[in-house]
Amino acid sequence: MRGDTVFPGMTATDAHDVPDVDLDFEDNEYLPAVAQDAESGEVLMLAYVTREALERTRETGLAHYYSRSRGELWQKGGTSGNVQHVEEVRVDCDGDALLYLIDQEGGACHTGFRSCFYRTIDGEVVSERVFDPDNVYD
Amino acid sequence: MRGDTVFPGMTATDAHDVPDVDLDFEDNEYLPAVAQDAESGEVLMLAYVTREALERTRETGLAHYYSRSRGELWQKGGTSGNVQHVEEVRVDCDGDALLYLIDQEGGACHTGFRSCFYRTIDGEVVSERVFDPDNVYD
Repeated sequence: MRGDTVFPGMTATDAHDVPDVDLDFEDNEYLPAVAQDAESGEVLMLAYVTREALERTRETGLAHYYSRSRGELWQKGGTSGNVQHVEEVRVDCDGDALLYLIDQEGGACHTGFRSCFYRTIDGEVVSERVFDPDNVYD
Repeated sequence: MRGDTVFPGMTATDAHDVPDVDLDFEDNEYLPAVAQDAESGEVLMLAYVTREALERTRETGLAHYYSRSRGELWQKGGTSGNVQHVEEVRVDCDGDALLYLIDQEGGACHTGFRSCFYRTIDGEVVSERVFDPDNVYD
């Protein structure tokens, strides 16, 4: 992260407009971003980013995503407090997927689990429940 | 994996048609699947799966994906030999993303790196080159 000061409402007109590695935002409005615990390696969630969400992430050091259903930028943990401190952003070979290496406050999943990938396809629970969503969300 | 016998060319008409956890293939033709090294935790790649690709993966224990550009099912490593043995498939909370925990033969990336996420957004290389693509692909 470059440690820029955050200016709320700022439009993206600075150097972040031009990532150092080509990202395929030409063919895709948004790209998938995988959030991985930087220390344990646990994959915590997958969400989507627009160029703006990625810029906001790099500016603030806090993970931002784009909600395809709501059509808006959101900061992870903005409601719950379970923010993600982004230590590093990696890009895949084709420039059409991102990997956020993060330090997760609380749990990543809105259901209260540490990881959104808390179950196998057979329904076996494999992640830890770390908070009660009734106490976190309205 | 359920350890089914592999029948080449078999169409998916068995119990794999109905996953035990709901997957959002109604709203999405394909879903993103993250491949993670089951032992080291390294995130190796992100690709897409249709219901058929997922079924083929579960039937064979080898990762299959769907190429959006070519519009076809493919087996990872079918050309290069760098197959992925799938030890477990996890599903996220919304049923619209998958996590394959795998044992990767060779490297996952067609560029020869162990991981497709071999560089940071600033261009620093952070993964190991494990093969020379000129020796693997025609």
